[in-house]
Amino acid sequence: MATLTLHPDRLFSADPGERGIARALYKDIKDLPIVSPHGHTDPAWFAHNEAFPNPAELLIVPDHYVFRMLYSQGVALEDLGVPTLDGSPVESDGRRIWQRFAAHYHLFRGTPSELWLNWVFAEVFGLDTTLTPDTADLYYDTIAEQLSSPAFRPRALFERFGIEVIATTEGALDELPAHRALGEDDWTGRVVSTYRPDSVVDPDYEGFRDELARFGELTDEDVGSWKGYLNAHRKRRAYFRDVGRATATDHGHPTARTANLSERNCEKLFARVVEGRLEDGDAETFRAQMLTEMARMSLEDGMAMQIHPGARRNHNEHVFARFGRDKGADIPSATEYVEALKPLLDEFGNNPALTVILFTLDEDSYSRELAPLAGHYPALRLGPPWWFHDSPEGMRRYRERISETAGFYNTVGFNDDTRAFLSIPARHDVARRMDCAWLAKLVADHRLDETAASELARALTYDLAKQAYKL
Amino acid sequence: MATLTLHPDRLFSADPGERGIARALYKDIKDLPIVSPHGHTDPAWFAHNEAFPNPAELLIVPDHYVFRMLYSQGVALEDLGVPTLDGSPVESDGRRIWQRFAAHYHLFRGTPSELWLNWVFAEVFGLDTTLTPDTADLYYDTIAEQLSSPAFRPRALFERFGIEVIATTEGALDELPAHRALGEDDWTGRVVSTYRPDSVVDPDYEGFRDELARFGELTDEDVGSWKGYLNAHRKRRAYFRDVGRATATDHGHPTARTANLSERNCEKLFARVVEGRLEDGDAETFRAQMLTEMARMSLEDGMAMQIHPGARRNHNEHVFARFGRDKGADIPSATEYVEALKPLLDEFGNNPALTVILFTLDEDSYSRELAPLAGHYPALRLGPPWWFHDSPEGMRRYRERISETAGFYNTVGFNDDTRAFLSIPARHDVARRMDCAWLAKLVADHRLDETAASELARALTYDLAKQAYKL
Amino acid sequence: MATLTLHPDRLFSADPGERGIARALYKDIKDLPIVSPHGHTDPAWFAHNEAFPNPAELLIVPDHYVFRMLYSQGVALEDLGVPTLDGSPVESDGRRIWQRFAAHYHLFRGTPSELWLNWVFAEVFGLDTTLTPDTADLYYDTIAEQLSSPAFRPRALFERFGIEVIATTEGALDELPAHRALGEDDWTGRVVSTYRPDSVVDPDYEGFRDELARFGELTDEDVGSWKGYLNAHRKRRAYFRDVGRATATDHGHPTARTANLSERNCEKLFARVVEGRLEDGDAETFRAQMLTEMARMSLEDGMAMQIHPGARRNHNEHVFARFGRDKGADIPSATEYVEALKPLLDEFGNNPALTVILFTLDEDSYSRELAPLAGHYPALRLGPPWWFHDSPEGMRRYRERISETAGFYNTVGFNDDTRAFLSIPARHDVARRMDCAWLAKLVADHRLDETAASELARALTYDLAKQAYKL
Repeated sequence: MATLTLHPDRLFSADPGERGIARALYKDIKDLPIVSPHGHTDPAWFAHNEAFPNPAELLIVPDHYVFRMLYSQGVALEDLGVPTLDGSPVESDGRRIWQRFAAHYHLFRGTPSELWLNWVFAEVFGLDTTLTPDTADLYYDTIAEQLSSPAFRPRALFERFGIEVIATTEGALDELPAHRALGEDDWTGRVVSTYRPDSVVDPDYEGFRDELARFGELTDEDVGSWKGYLNAHRKRRAYFRDVGRATATDHGHPTARTANLSERNCEKLFARVVEGRLEDGDAETFRAQMLTEMARMSLEDGMAMQIHPGARRNHNEHVFARFGRDKGADIPSATEYVEALKPLLDEFGNNPALTVILFTLDEDSYSRELAPLAGHYPALRLGPPWWFHDSPEGMRRYRERISETAGFYNTVGFNDDTRAFLSIPARHDVARRMDCAWLAKLVADHRLDETAASELARALTYDLAKQAYKL
Repeated sequence: MATLTLHPDRLFSADPGERGIARALYKDIKDLPIVSPHGHTDPAWFAHNEAFPNPAELLIVPDHYVFRMLYSQGVALEDLGVPTLDGSPVESDGRRIWQRFAAHYHLFRGTPSELWLNWVFAEVFGLDTTLTPDTADLYYDTIAEQLSSPAFRPRALFERFGIEVIATTEGALDELPAHRALGEDDWTGRVVSTYRPDSVVDPDYEGFRDELARFGELTDEDVGSWKGYLNAHRKRRAYFRDVGRATATDHGHPTARTANLSERNCEKLFARVVEGRLEDGDAETFRAQMLTEMARMSLEDGMAMQIHPGARRNHNEHVFARFGRDKGADIPSATEYVEALKPLLDEFGNNPALTVILFTLDEDSYSRELAPLAGHYPALRLGPPWWFHDSPEGMRRYRERISETAGFYNTVGFNDDTRAFLSIPARHDVARRMDCAWLAKLVADHRLDETAASELARALTYDLAKQAYKL
Repeated sequence: MATLTLHPDRLFSADPGERGIARALYKDIKDLPIVSPHGHTDPAWFAHNEAFPNPAELLIVPDHYVFRMLYSQGVALEDLGVPTLDGSPVESDGRRIWQRFAAHYHLFRGTPSELWLNWVFAEVFGLDTTLTPDTADLYYDTIAEQLSSPAFRPRALFERFGIEVIATTEGALDELPAHRALGEDDWTGRVVSTYRPDSVVDPDYEGFRDELARFGELTDEDVGSWKGYLNAHRKRRAYFRDVGRATATDHGHPTARTANLSERNCEKLFARVVEGRLEDGDAETFRAQMLTEMARMSLEDGMAMQIHPGARRNHNEHVFARFGRDKGADIPSATEYVEALKPLLDEFGNNPALTVILFTLDEDSYSRELAPLAGHYPALRLGPPWWFHDSPEGMRRYRERISETAGFYNTVGFNDDTRAFLSIPARHDVARRMDCAWLAKLVADHRLDETAASELARALTYDLAKQAYKL
């Protein structure tokens, strides 16, 4: 059985000079607390602090990064326990799911999933041999046993991981019961919500009109009128701040388009949206207008605003019909920012009191659009490499293409953006290592002095996220 | 005269640590047989085994990589012996062509053409000084003399090059006489055809309707009807498998668009195509529909399917009018895959029995579209860096942008894709070296262990191509 | 106070092997004269040779690279002394502007601006501590004192910088008084103009019709007729050659589109342009046609032609309204070349007597469009990395993506393209270092021999610019 080792110099350049500098930078920031300002963990884990289920239910079934890769090589999602929408049966034996995963673990060679998983195996569960078909049962038993112990409950792991604050993401209709419970609990872990109103902002969302009706009930506003609808958002934003301690909103739109219509045109457009009389382009225009409205409200209430555009959701219609959303079939598409953001920027872009954090799945926009925009507009900051690009090479490309135009201080540190709780330290560690590796390269090339590099390492790890997200 | 040397460490990183790992990986795979699953060599060379003509006719006149570079710096194609369509005279003195080439050989500095040519000069012909105007005659005489010897006949070189199998590419109307002769010959070299039906699939192809008529005659099918036309394809595919031992098809379309019309709409569209009553967009829709039909037939007959989209062919109208196709004037254009492939993927994308191998000339699609698609759909695999990107830097970008999302096992190894027979080992050697260099980097950065790297080096060199192309 | 040092190995690879080769290459070319074939310095500086004003007026107020970064972090342009269009007051105290700049100097970490500025501080002004709030006054005083001495007058710096020739850029209506004065002066510095006729070519230019009227007056041509308008261009081009010693033209269009209409259609289109009866697309078509006309005239008069497309100018409407053009709010956009250039290339692309130098702000076009085009058409050459991409990483991407297809000889060396006169040697030095670093990598990887690398280093530094711009 091969040894599973996490080399202390992993992800640092092989060049001895660069590596030495990276090591020194990393040493100073590796133990800084984790600030996780955007992600998808379940707040109920922290509120109820119940044991996680078996290894497969924890690490495979919910992780679309993992099961999509097996699926791409012909493994059925049913055989991996992914639940069907209609309840038709799927594999329920965690051990068999785990064995199938182990039999295909070589598919992850060279991927960030392997880096994250190996970290979880070695650091969280103390495993010291590599995962292969031969060690599958050993892994399963070792992990299952530990998961049943108190030291592996969510709060214990939260503390062990050194998390200072973690943000979850909830829809506009969420009553935030877990966040409420956490607020009334004397546990000191800091878990905050994020306001993500896509289901009441996007007329193309499944069940949009039902969501809208419920939005009105929850807020006691007339969401049949534009003014009442905006008020409903204001109330829910206040609720998220009060009950969920939220400091930010998040918007996952197909494009980055914004609009700035007259009040009269907003009312007319909203009437068509409410009555389901959408004309061509109305859904897109409405989403676009709502980004501008959200920016306006952010200036009122101080919440930072995140825009995550450009995912072509649910590309595989069979997988969507059978298994639903978030099954590894969201595919990026080309995303334009320069014209798309102009209406919002014309209105609010020059206001340094606003923080709009931009993300992209289209790396072409890094040097061409995003860095020049963020290097000019006071209201703009750039989010870290997102999703498919949250990887060593993705991070390198991000720094290579962003830094020279936008600098470092127009970026906001790292997001883990994950629902895979156990991998959070691994993800932050990859980011810290890659940042130190990048800074070390600049120092080795004599483009940056060591003092500046050291300050930047800390800023990228900790300060910038705290500032941008007001945490 | 400067010495021509092929350094044993060429293309490996200068970092001693990485270089040492790359050397070890390369040592184990460098002598594996060449599997060449896609290319454009002439099967008649192997069937008839005649001597190649003079150095210029072999290495310059047919190689658009070579003569386009001289043309870009003002050398007339006529002066390089490129034949005109109307037969108006061009340079016919091979030695003078060679001298012109030698006088401009510095233009190739830093290009893969130089790497390939220097390999051919040193390894095939044993030349040990660099090509300059001063050595042009020495080169010409040395090469010419060797070409006349039996050891430089196509079959001898095939064996010397360690080629296990090579695929050629023929149009749908080709009777495959050379492949037939090879099948009846007792020579053991394995040469297979590939079914490339563009001329009877693309209504914009020059002479499409004549090609279509001949297609009907050859197959004895009524190619005026949609059903008969599809049957004609089925028959030709069977013919290519039987006579040409083909295991794959290939499709060179302007875009990656696919369609999945109802049978009735296919019949109507095909009627317009046959009658030359094309409406706007019909040609594109017909090509798009035919990709889906080809996928359907691939599921019937097991042939792998290659899509090579995005070349803007014959961009230079003067060069096209005077010299015809394939004269170095094909220019890539931006190519969209996510929406384009959806109709085909909706129909067949979830079927692991299908293998669709995607290529691109638009590197932007690597991380944004192709890796996410191939990292999800069981029917998709990614072809190697193509054409302009079949180069050291092109290969590096491919691995950097593809591997973290699609992994290595959703790729299919290397294609030389060349008509330059003598350069085939050089091209595979560049790929092997760059793969080893990339894997060595991952090992040196502690992102991959040495055992995995070693298995991957072999897979990328040999196994993946054999599997994907069913060779 | 930290020491400000310019490390002699800056920008070379940290790998000792590569670094050694880079050093040797650089040693041979670092002192070659500066050829600056495209830029925006003020010819009056050289004609009148007056002292530069205070440090802030010289280095901050006019430099949009510098003040946009402070603006992006919330510093008001007024506080940096950027003049308003309406004359409303802004900070006029150079020292206070300088102190604000010093307080934010950390924002430039990792940017080329920091490289250039540090070079100016150390090499031009002999400063040996880093710029911080604590050293702001020391800097201000040191620089101010030196600026008042004769050794820091424009001509003295020109000579000290080793400038062989510098090109400025003037609009079509410019009478070139400074160039005229320089022509009549016995100072030996060579300063030439460039013909940039955007204001009389682009119907969307502010004040286009007034510019056009003045164009007619200046040339005594009937610029109400297509023929007269073209003649006016011919006359101004001749004037720029005669009085401004110009060897090139420059065209800054929103896109790279070209057109080649019939004479009759040109006349009709021009009539609509002149009469202000523009229909949809007319402005774009007119600019497109004019690129083809400019190419035609370049064949007549031998001027090289530069195309700088793809900047979305004045994106920030508030900044534009208050401060005007060139205030750091120009944002690149996706730029297509393959179809856009075809009309011009169909007409003139095969003529090696024409030199069209293409630039881009869209790096995606490097390997996909520009290198294949320049690697085929005799009339095309590629300009160096432009604007946001004139940076170490930008230069690396340029070589990585361009060289393998276009080679080195289809490029034209470096442009500093700057109005920041003092930074010119720093900018050329960055380019020289990055070129040597790139060539050193090729040598270290055994992709290039040392003799070839040495010849290329000189070509990229000196020869190619002289040839392409006919200087």
